Amino acid sequence: MALSTLTNNHFVAAMNHVQPQQNMVLDHPKTNLPNKAKRLAESLSHVLHLHIDPTPRTIHKNLHFINLHHSTPTMSPRENISQKWRQIQGCDDWENMLEPLHPWLRREVVKYGEFAQATYDAFDYDSFSEYCGSCRYNQNKLFQKLGLTRHGYTVTRYLYAMSHVDLPRWLERSRVADTWSKDSNWIGFVAVSDDQETRRIGRRNIVVAWRGTVAPCEWYEDFQSKLEPLGHGGAKVEQGFLSIYKSKSDATRYNKSSASEQVMNEVTNLVKGFREKGEQVSLTITGHSLGGALALLNAYEVAATIVDLPVSVISFGAPRVGNIAFKDELQQMGVKLLRVTVKQDWVPKMPGILFNERFKVFDEITGLEWVYTHYGAQLELDVRSSPYLKGGINLSGFHSLETYLHLIDGHLSCETPFRLEAKRDVALVNKSCDMLVDELRIAQCWYQLANKGLVLNAHGRWVKPKRDPEDVPSHASELCSADLGIVLM
Amino acid sequence: MALSTLTNNHFVAAMNHVQPQQNMVLDHPKTNLPNKAKRLAESLSHVLHLHIDPTPRTIHKNLHFINLHHSTPTMSPRENISQKWRQIQGCDDWENMLEPLHPWLRREVVKYGEFAQATYDAFDYDSFSEYCGSCRYNQNKLFQKLGLTRHGYTVTRYLYAMSHVDLPRWLERSRVADTWSKDSNWIGFVAVSDDQETRRIGRRNIVVAWRGTVAPCEWYEDFQSKLEPLGHGGAKVEQGFLSIYKSKSDATRYNKSSASEQVMNEVTNLVKGFREKGEQVSLTITGHSLGGALALLNAYEVAATIVDLPVSVISFGAPRVGNIAFKDELQQMGVKLLRVTVKQDWVPKMPGILFNERFKVFDEITGLEWVYTHYGAQLELDVRSSPYLKGGINLSGFHSLETYLHLIDGHLSCETPFRLEAKRDVALVNKSCDMLVDELRIAQCWYQLANKGLVLNAHGRWVKPKRDPEDVPSHASELCSADLGIVLM
Repeated sequence: MALSTLTNNHFVAAMNHVQPQQNMVLDHPKTNLPNKAKRLAESLSHVLHLHIDPTPRTIHKNLHFINLHHSTPTMSPRENISQKWRQIQGCDDWENMLEPLHPWLRREVVKYGEFAQATYDAFDYDSFSEYCGSCRYNQNKLFQKLGLTRHGYTVTRYLYAMSHVDLPRWLERSRVADTWSKDSNWIGFVAVSDDQETRRIGRRNIVVAWRGTVAPCEWYEDFQSKLEPLGHGGAKVEQGFLSIYKSKSDATRYNKSSASEQVMNEVTNLVKGFREKGEQVSLTITGHSLGGALALLNAYEVAATIVDLPVSVISFGAPRVGNIAFKDELQQMGVKLLRVTVKQDWVPKMPGILFNERFKVFDEITGLEWVYTHYGAQLELDVRSSPYLKGGINLSGFHSLETYLHLIDGHLSCETPFRLEAKRDVALVNKSCDMLVDELRIAQCWYQLANKGLVLNAHGRWVKPKRDPEDVPSHASELCSADLGIVLM
Repeated sequence: MALSTLTNNHFVAAMNHVQPQQNMVLDHPKTNLPNKAKRLAESLSHVLHLHIDPTPRTIHKNLHFINLHHSTPTMSPRENISQKWRQIQGCDDWENMLEPLHPWLRREVVKYGEFAQATYDAFDYDSFSEYCGSCRYNQNKLFQKLGLTRHGYTVTRYLYAMSHVDLPRWLERSRVADTWSKDSNWIGFVAVSDDQETRRIGRRNIVVAWRGTVAPCEWYEDFQSKLEPLGHGGAKVEQGFLSIYKSKSDATRYNKSSASEQVMNEVTNLVKGFREKGEQVSLTITGHSLGGALALLNAYEVAATIVDLPVSVISFGAPRVGNIAFKDELQQMGVKLLRVTVKQDWVPKMPGILFNERFKVFDEITGLEWVYTHYGAQLELDVRSSPYLKGGINLSGFHSLETYLHLIDGHLSCETPFRLEAKRDVALVNKSCDMLVDELRIAQCWYQLANKGLVLNAHGRWVKPKRDPEDVPSHASELCSADLGIVLM
C-alpha cells in the first residue's frame, strides 16, 4: 500500500493496519492544507524545477499487446520485388496499392522513412560542441552506427545547406568560436543500393534523404514572406525552402556550392556512372517536415535536368511548397509523389490551414496563387489506429517521424485495425516524444547520450572528448564527387 | 558570419559579399513580421516543444580559468590528520578553523559531502523501473561505481525509510505493479573507515549518510502540520522529518523496522565491535537538505543511547528541524553540528523565513515554540565567490549539493577570493542544474544514462535490461547486521 498517496481520510484506516510501535509519535492525522498554502507549495516546487511528478497511477500488465514482440526480430524476410518495382515507385501513382496498403510498398516506405530519420538521429545538436550542426559520424559509418546496414545501401555523399534568408532558429549553431562552420548545417545525404539490394529491387536505386528542422512557426513566418519563382514557367515556391536549397557563399567552408549544386552534381555523376555500365537506375528522394519540402524542390530540379530518370518522392508530414504551376510542372515532368500524412498532424495542412482560418490576411499576402489541390498520392494514417499510442493532444508527437513510421508499420487499410503482426520496434516511437502508453514502460524522449557526451578522463575529470578525427566534417570531401568503387564493390 | 542571425538591415549588406549565383532568386530582403504573427509563431513553437533556443551568444576562450585543470588530478595528497581529528570533528565547535577554513577540515567536509551526494547519484528515479526508489547498486559496489573508493570507506548497511504521514511527492514510487517495494525508499547508508584510512584520521570513523529528497514545498506543508515531541524532555521536531525517520510497518518488506531502528542497530553493533577491539571510534552523520534534518534526528538518538561516542553532524543546506528544547538537549548531549549553508540558498532559512514573512499565520499554527537561535557552527558560502558560476537567480542551483561542494572546495575565507588551486572537478556542478558559465562548455543537467537505460537487444529491440541480480534490493540483508569481517580485513 503506497502510504504517500493516502488522503487524510485514508490515513486513520491505514494506521489500523499498522502494528503498534514504540517511539512512534504519529497520532495526528495530517491536517488539511489551506488552498493558499497548497498553491504556494506548488509554485515553489515549480520554481525549483524539482523532481516532482504527480503521483502516477500504478501500471498493471493488463493489455494483450504488452511486450508482445520483445524477443522477435524487427524485420520480416525481404521478398524479391524486382518485377514490381515501377509500381512500388509510383509509375501508376500507387493506384490499388494504398487501400489496402501493399506489404511490399509498406516495407519500402518504412525503409525510406528510416533514411530520413537517420538525418535526425546522427545530427549533433550540442550547442557547446564545436561540431554543432554537423553529422556525428562520417558517411562510411553512418548506417552502421544507426543499425541501417540491413537496408543494403551505401552513403556516397553528405549534403550541407545554409540560408541567405533570415530564418530564425533554422540553423543549429555552435556557441563556441572555433566551430567547424558558422554558416552551414548537415542537411542530408545521397546513398546508393549495393549490388545485392539492387538485385532484390530490380534496379540501381539512388536515395537522397533531406533533414527537416524547421518548426511550423518558421514555416508560418516564411509563408508570410514572398514566394519565389522557380525555373522558367510560372512555378513559384516558398522563399524559405528555396533559400535553404539554393543558398551558397564563397565565404563559407561547406557551402561554396549550394545544397542544390551538391546533390545535382552527385546524382548526375551516379546516374552517368551506372548508365555507362548499362544499369537501370531510379531516384527516390525522401524527407520529413521541412525535409519533405526540400525533397520536392530537389525532384523538380532533377526531373528538369536528367532525362528518362524515374524520380519518386516519399515525403512524411511535409507542408505545401509551391503554387499550382509548380504542381502542374512536377506532374508534367512525371515526378511521382507519395505524401504520407497523419490525420492529427496539422503540419501537412500548412499553409492551407491559414487560408481556411484567416482568409483576409492570407489573401492580402499572396492572393490566390496559393490555392491548389493536393499533389501526388496520399497515404493518410490515424494516431487512433494504434493501441500502443496515448490518447490526448500531442502536437510534437503527432508530427514526429517515428510516430509516422510506427503507424505505417501497423497500417493495413483505413477500415482494418492496427496490424498485430507489425514487427517494427514500438519503443522507437518515444525516442524524442511522449506518445507510448505507460503500459509499455518506455520513458519519453529516451534517445540521449550518456552524460550528454561527457566522459571521465584519466585525471578523474568529466570532459567532452575530442571527436574521432575520421568523424570530423571535411569540406574537402564536399568538393570531390562519389567514388563509384565503394558502391560497385 | 552566422547568417541566421542577420537582421533585415544586415541582409542586403550580406548579399553584397556573396558571389552572383545562377538560379538564386533571393532579391527581396525578408519583410518584417507583424508582431501578431511573431507572437503566434512563438506560441506555436512553444506548444510543439521544438528544439528551439534563442540564438546563443558565441563563446570565446577569454577567461583565464577556462580548462585550467583539465589534465590535473582532482585530489591533493592526503595529510595524516590523526593528531587533530577531534578539532576537525568539532570538539571545540570548530573554533579558529572556519575563518580561514582549515585545509584539513575543508577536505573532510568535502569527503562527507560526497558521501551525501552518493545517495543522489546512485538513486533509481525511473518510475517505469520495478526498482524505482532503490539504489542502483548493491552496497559492495556503491563506492566503486561512483569513484569514491579513494576515501577509504566500506559500506556496511543500506537504510530504507517510509512515512506514515502523507508527504506528497516524498516517496519515489514505481508505476509498475510488481515493484521491489511500494512503501519504502532507499534513504542512505552506514559506512566505516578501512584500516588505512583509520590510521590516517586517528580513529575508526563510522559515517551515516542520509539522502534528501523532499522539496521545500513539502517542508512548507509539513511545517504547517504539527510538531511532534521527541524523547522525554520538551524537545519537539517537525512531524514530517520524524515520520520518515521513525515509520515502520510489518506489512512492508523493507520497513518492518524503521530507518531509526536500522541505523541504531547498525551503529550500535559497529561501535560495540570496534570497542571490543580496543579501538577509538567516532560517528559522523551527514546529509543534504532533508538528509541534513534526518542526520540531526539520528544524532539526537545516538547521543541519547550510546555513551561517550563523539558524534558530529556535517549538514549541507539543511532546514531547521525542531524547537529550542531540541536544540538545548543536543547541546547538552555534546552533539557537534557544522551547518554548511550557501548565502543564496533559502532552504536553510526555512521555516524561519515564514516566521519573518507571514508572522500572523505562523503564530496561529505553532506559536513561539519555533522561535530559536541557530544551533551549531556555520560555514556560510557565497555563490558569487566562484568565477565558474553564473550570475542570476537559480534557486535549484543555489540549493544543489554539488554547488555546495564546489564552493567549499574554493573557499578560503569570507575576505579572500575563490582558491584558484581548488582541484575538485568543476564540471560536477552542472550534474543536475545549470550553474556553470558557458565558457566552460559543460551542458546543464548532464548526469544521465545513455538512452535512459534502454539497450538494444539481440533482436534489434530497445528494452530495459533486467537489473544485475546482485544489485536487486534484498530485504533479507536489511535484517542481518554488519559483517565486521569485511571492515576489518
